[in-house]
Amino acid sequence: MSDAISPLATPFPALPAIAGVTPRVARAGYKDWGRCDLTYVELDEGTSVAGVFTRNVCCSSEVELGRQNIAQGSARALVVNAGNSNAFTGYRGREAVEQIMAQVADHLGCAQDEVFVSSTGVIGVPLPKDKARAGIEAAMQADVCTWEDAARTIGTTDTFAKGATASAMIGDVRVTFSAIIKGSGMIAPDMATMLGYIFTDAAVSPAFLQECLSAANRRTFSCITVDSDTSTSDTVLAFATGKAGNTELTGFDSAGADAFAAALEDVCRQLSHLVVKDGEGAQKFIAVSVTGAVSDESARKVGLAIANSPLVKTAIAGEDANWGRVVMAVGKAGEPADRDRLSIGFGGTWAARDGQPLADYDEAPVAAHLKGREISIEVDLGLGDGAATVWTCDLTHGYISINADYRS
Amino acid sequence: MSDAISPLATPFPALPAIAGVTPRVARAGYKDWGRCDLTYVELDEGTSVAGVFTRNVCCSSEVELGRQNIAQGSARALVVNAGNSNAFTGYRGREAVEQIMAQVADHLGCAQDEVFVSSTGVIGVPLPKDKARAGIEAAMQADVCTWEDAARTIGTTDTFAKGATASAMIGDVRVTFSAIIKGSGMIAPDMATMLGYIFTDAAVSPAFLQECLSAANRRTFSCITVDSDTSTSDTVLAFATGKAGNTELTGFDSAGADAFAAALEDVCRQLSHLVVKDGEGAQKFIAVSVTGAVSDESARKVGLAIANSPLVKTAIAGEDANWGRVVMAVGKAGEPADRDRLSIGFGGTWAARDGQPLADYDEAPVAAHLKGREISIEVDLGLGDGAATVWTCDLTHGYISINADYRS
Repeated sequence: MSDAISPLATPFPALPAIAGVTPRVARAGYKDWGRCDLTYVELDEGTSVAGVFTRNVCCSSEVELGRQNIAQGSARALVVNAGNSNAFTGYRGREAVEQIMAQVADHLGCAQDEVFVSSTGVIGVPLPKDKARAGIEAAMQADVCTWEDAARTIGTTDTFAKGATASAMIGDVRVTFSAIIKGSGMIAPDMATMLGYIFTDAAVSPAFLQECLSAANRRTFSCITVDSDTSTSDTVLAFATGKAGNTELTGFDSAGADAFAAALEDVCRQLSHLVVKDGEGAQKFIAVSVTGAVSDESARKVGLAIANSPLVKTAIAGEDANWGRVVMAVGKAGEPADRDRLSIGFGGTWAARDGQPLADYDEAPVAAHLKGREISIEVDLGLGDGAATVWTCDLTHGYISINADYRS
Repeated sequence: MSDAISPLATPFPALPAIAGVTPRVARAGYKDWGRCDLTYVELDEGTSVAGVFTRNVCCSSEVELGRQNIAQGSARALVVNAGNSNAFTGYRGREAVEQIMAQVADHLGCAQDEVFVSSTGVIGVPLPKDKARAGIEAAMQADVCTWEDAARTIGTTDTFAKGATASAMIGDVRVTFSAIIKGSGMIAPDMATMLGYIFTDAAVSPAFLQECLSAANRRTFSCITVDSDTSTSDTVLAFATGKAGNTELTGFDSAGADAFAAALEDVCRQLSHLVVKDGEGAQKFIAVSVTGAVSDESARKVGLAIANSPLVKTAIAGEDANWGRVVMAVGKAGEPADRDRLSIGFGGTWAARDGQPLADYDEAPVAAHLKGREISIEVDLGLGDGAATVWTCDLTHGYISINADYRS
């Protein structure tokens, strides 16, 4: 964890324990730092698993194997290494992951493909197998840790620990979610763009868990961006232990399925916002709401063009209502737009309508809004009913300082 | 022009006069600054014109009208306004451009569509018609100016004046090019991403001039990026007066056509590199060479993914041979790539080959290379014969300072 805490940080919430989930942490020493860097979570038998992964074609062996393993639908353990992403390390990297899977499977008496591994940190250095082995050994013997310990241990350049919780009623059974996530650079849309882990005691079939997670992902993790860069390791996994005792959910026709899906999406939205709020150098949290597009997907792409524009992000950093840069970003998105129907506002005040600056535009409320920590940009394309909201942060000197100094 | 000159600046070259081209500058006072901000170039009768324009769909009236006017193939004048882009200003912006075209056409006794207008600066403020009229009047009565004066007058946040020249033999006739350009933010590929003007005394048909300019554009202006943002006003125009007396070039079967096309591309390459060297905050000029792609276009897209990556650009700013970030950018490009065939180098030294770090990688020459002003990144995809080179600059605190302060 970095020293300077994001001004957008929020306190770690009170996350309930999830029956069937046992987290522990240890020091593997992947880097020369005095902190835990290996997270080991045991999952009881009968746990369903679903996942979404980076679309980066140069993905790590962890991602390749995770994508394969998810197919059989059950999980018994999760291992997360921090400080070394093990990406772009060829057969040696793959061997390290397979060793971890074998070690844990041997310990738990489960199949290797029920062990999920993630790694985050520098690219191009094979994960040291001896440190991984000893770290896992230590974690297996460690006390059960808190969710906050686990959230802190999976972090790298994160400046605060990130967690979320929600619950839902399935019939008369309450099911509970606890989830942790890490960011905070190399964050871009169109995939699960970080390492996030969601645990629930609900009984859910793997297929329906995947359906819910994929849908939530499209409206949450795929709608955030910090710097338009896409990691080689991004992974979000959902684990459902079934310990709550509800009748297993197998599809949207199961009683309580809507409530479950809504709670899962709520958790994903909380997690995705936390990643943005810890975006490298972030001083402001920005919601870009696009309406009037030809489709929801078109609205999302326009929103991301705005959210990824360095000129828009620096304008917000400078508290400048520079709506001309928003116009530019809309125009470069490659989506249907009509300059003369375009309207742009900040914090609920329109600055331009139908392709022209407003004659009676009052900048005072906009200037006041831009001085805050939470900024909204409204864009109406005037073409159709498509809508989406995308979240990002501003682009500041802090981003440059972090990334021009971070050593490979 | 800004106060702090780019460390990558080069002295303005000695540009020859072009027969049939008469540049003048004046103060229209579009902003409250003590400098000329209106450039007026008269072109003799018989001048061919070709152009490439921004693909931003929220383009300015200048771009809309220029794209229309180019169709008839001849030009008599160019007017460039600096300090106000006149973009996103609705019918009032269009009226201002039409007024300028009418005023100049009336003065020269030519058709309105032979008058080309560009504007650059803040978006969303209609160009003041009275200032434009008086400025053009003043320019018409001004002395002929130097190319350097014209180059300086079209600039906005540029920190140095940019010009280029070349010549070619067509039969036994030497034809000459002089060209000016301005940058330096909101620079992204896939279109003519700036205001650039190329003047030659060659006799060339409009259609062949357009063919040559479009081809050169694909390998020069479309291969640079500063910040991935695409202006609403970008324009490159080529004017050929025919005064050199060569037999008119009408296609690649005309004698000397290859030499002409090569010289034009040379000028475009010089201009495009100058824009990168004055990229906002630029401290280093970066050439990204991609080989082994499935096609040249695929190589260009991979190159641009690398050149637009904030994490690659900040790594170069920090003189860090962080090839893992290059791997990431290759993987997110959305083009065919195979992690296990990928090789990456800096300044001619391979750091990784075939998907793995090199065992005998010597970082010393790479570290020395990265301390310089001109950086090269080599990427071999190992798939085919496609190749491209893309140029960009690093991402520094200077970019943030310029753009978080620049007032809309």
